[in-house]
Amino acid sequence: MIVFGAVYSDRMTAASDPGELLQRMFAAAVAAAAPDACMPPHMPARPKGRTVVIGAGKASAAMARAVEMNWPGELSGLVVTRYGHAVPCKRIEVVEAAHPVPDENGVAAATRILELVRGLTTDDLVICLISGGGSALLTLPAAGLSLADKQQVNRALLRSGATISEMNCVRKHLSAIKGGRLAAAAWPAKIVTLVISDVPGDDPATIASGPTVADRTTYADARTVLRKYAINEPAAVLTHLQKAGDESPKSDDPRLVTARTVLIATPQASLEAAAKVASRAGVTPLILSDRIEGEASEVAKVHAGIALQIAARDQPAARPAVILSGGETTVTVKGKGRGGRNAEFLLSLAVVLEGARGIHAIACDTDGIDGSEDNAGALIGPETWYLAGERGIDLKSRLADNDAYGAFAALDCLVVTGPTLTNVNDFRAILVTS
Amino acid sequence: MIVFGAVYSDRMTAASDPGELLQRMFAAAVAAAAPDACMPPHMPARPKGRTVVIGAGKASAAMARAVEMNWPGELSGLVVTRYGHAVPCKRIEVVEAAHPVPDENGVAAATRILELVRGLTTDDLVICLISGGGSALLTLPAAGLSLADKQQVNRALLRSGATISEMNCVRKHLSAIKGGRLAAAAWPAKIVTLVISDVPGDDPATIASGPTVADRTTYADARTVLRKYAINEPAAVLTHLQKAGDESPKSDDPRLVTARTVLIATPQASLEAAAKVASRAGVTPLILSDRIEGEASEVAKVHAGIALQIAARDQPAARPAVILSGGETTVTVKGKGRGGRNAEFLLSLAVVLEGARGIHAIACDTDGIDGSEDNAGALIGPETWYLAGERGIDLKSRLADNDAYGAFAALDCLVVTGPTLTNVNDFRAILVTS
Repeated sequence: MIVFGAVYSDRMTAASDPGELLQRMFAAAVAAAAPDACMPPHMPARPKGRTVVIGAGKASAAMARAVEMNWPGELSGLVVTRYGHAVPCKRIEVVEAAHPVPDENGVAAATRILELVRGLTTDDLVICLISGGGSALLTLPAAGLSLADKQQVNRALLRSGATISEMNCVRKHLSAIKGGRLAAAAWPAKIVTLVISDVPGDDPATIASGPTVADRTTYADARTVLRKYAINEPAAVLTHLQKAGDESPKSDDPRLVTARTVLIATPQASLEAAAKVASRAGVTPLILSDRIEGEASEVAKVHAGIALQIAARDQPAARPAVILSGGETTVTVKGKGRGGRNAEFLLSLAVVLEGARGIHAIACDTDGIDGSEDNAGALIGPETWYLAGERGIDLKSRLADNDAYGAFAALDCLVVTGPTLTNVNDFRAILVTS
Repeated sequence: MIVFGAVYSDRMTAASDPGELLQRMFAAAVAAAAPDACMPPHMPARPKGRTVVIGAGKASAAMARAVEMNWPGELSGLVVTRYGHAVPCKRIEVVEAAHPVPDENGVAAATRILELVRGLTTDDLVICLISGGGSALLTLPAAGLSLADKQQVNRALLRSGATISEMNCVRKHLSAIKGGRLAAAAWPAKIVTLVISDVPGDDPATIASGPTVADRTTYADARTVLRKYAINEPAAVLTHLQKAGDESPKSDDPRLVTARTVLIATPQASLEAAAKVASRAGVTPLILSDRIEGEASEVAKVHAGIALQIAARDQPAARPAVILSGGETTVTVKGKGRGGRNAEFLLSLAVVLEGARGIHAIACDTDGIDGSEDNAGALIGPETWYLAGERGIDLKSRLADNDAYGAFAALDCLVVTGPTLTNVNDFRAILVTS
């Protein structure tokens, strides 16, 4: 097990200790997205009146603490985060709720957040702290709907093959807080939303379903999505969408004109931070994309092909080079093993590379938890392949069983950080030295 | 339908006609692997004695014709190619056989080829023409085995999850011609093998199971593979492997010492040829890899992520740029539609890109036949997405039905070339202009 927190030296380590260099890159990627580091430059000006802090997401408690530490005046508020992601705050209340399936704690928090921002004046300021996971954590069914209604539609949408943007369109029209409704409620107070992005393209209207951002979709769009995927459950939802009252605020809504949104951390910024670490160590960084999606084991095959091309032909970059990519892969579970998408990615990579000389790789979730286990991800090299052979661990059959966690635990190459209290999605780095 | 053969201009077309530029890149990739172009520089010296030409593969007839056209002296021989891939030759006999499942025509051809090279002298020369598909076309069961025995083991191996190199190890030890046995039979004649590669890594021992190349594996290895995957059928095969007589020639075998192998065309050389076309048009080529593998629709998602990164951030290359990749993807058929892996790749790419501005792509099999249809592949752009919307063609559900051919036929963007008579595997190019 590789535990984080060592003091890293600045010496060239690409060839002498590739694993250490890869861990430094991941650490830099996480540090670039840490609220303590990325929030201070974006603190809004102090208002004449009150300052209310609200927020939702896996990073919201850490973000709230960063506000407290950088705010000179009066402050109060409430943020909701995932179970286990709270940190002690003095003036902002922190509550925990369920993710990814919402629970009543999330509904109660959303209700209180709406109450907190209602009745403010133009002299007041609302600081809204949004990060990944906020959509499930900030749940408030529209009038006439129950949490169960929303959950039922959500499950049907997930099964239907609808795109994320189609699902978000429906969700925004079944909610009393999403799709700009939170900002509308806070009016006439000024509202500044600080966002840590974990979505491809970093669109604030998408992150946490954009509670403070103008909605580009309508009730009619939501009905079209349900028709397209033949979703006709439950009746209360259909009635609500047919009624089409209280449309979500659009970009010309006067209540949203003064709302401002700032991206304070993104997958791309974290990849750039890792690239800097590589460059300083004399390694050419190749940022492939901040938005790689697809089945983890297949995505790994493409990364392996590129790594082998670097090793064989110094294309598309000359050695030593590191391939960097972000985004979020998926795992279609068919086996009975354990493991998240980053470990699955690495296990498939190891199977394709078959111990290829001079290729090492790290893949971790920047939130510190890869799926449902206790690891952030793992770190592999040629030695992983040979050690597996010696210990009789068949990596190929472990992959077929989706048991990346089990395999890498047995090979002592899990990366364990604990929750990092931020989230800019997955981080992958493949270092090719020879 | 886009039919090849237009005369291309040299003007800058990246922005003005991206589709034309992409077709020129594909045409250059195919031309670089065409026997007429790539064989003449590699013709061996004329021997004192006889010259016998043999060969197997999808390109073998075209290669034989290229020898005839570039050979000053006496010549005879026999090559075997896939049904529909014969071209008229004058002095070398061309026979056709089944691919990918071998038939009796292949067995008969292999028998005659062995007879042709036996009894030659040190003054004689054998020119062996090898290309993709040669393994199935050049089939000769070892003594005591039937074609049905080999087919049965082959099917069991394909189901087992064994790697290509493991399958080749077994095949070489069930064959009377593979794994260097053809070269051993031709001894003491000189033998020169000219190879068009369609495999990752271009290892001549792998292409067509290396009939003229020293084998690195043994009967013991073959038995290990069968044990590992619990394959115990049929009895004749097990008996043959247990007997372990007549081991395949190894690198120190005196009969193979003078055997020479020349790679005359490779996926990489074809990518480089396409890259030159791009450079001349002012477009930066990014050769990702000559050996991309994986599920076609997932591989497309990764390529889409990279293309969007170029469009959004000029990384890993600045616009205008073209991503080039080779190798062979796979399609796990779940639907009832038609289409090969290159069309499937493009359909998935189109679904992810959703008409993204300034991104056009071509994906074709360099052999001119994408799977089992009549097209080499297809060519798409943002207009493909919007046209599909207008015509009510749901690209996402077509993808789920594996109906890339049907979708692109309806959208008039299939690329049709007919058999190109060469094969350096798949060719993909994604052009990002804005």
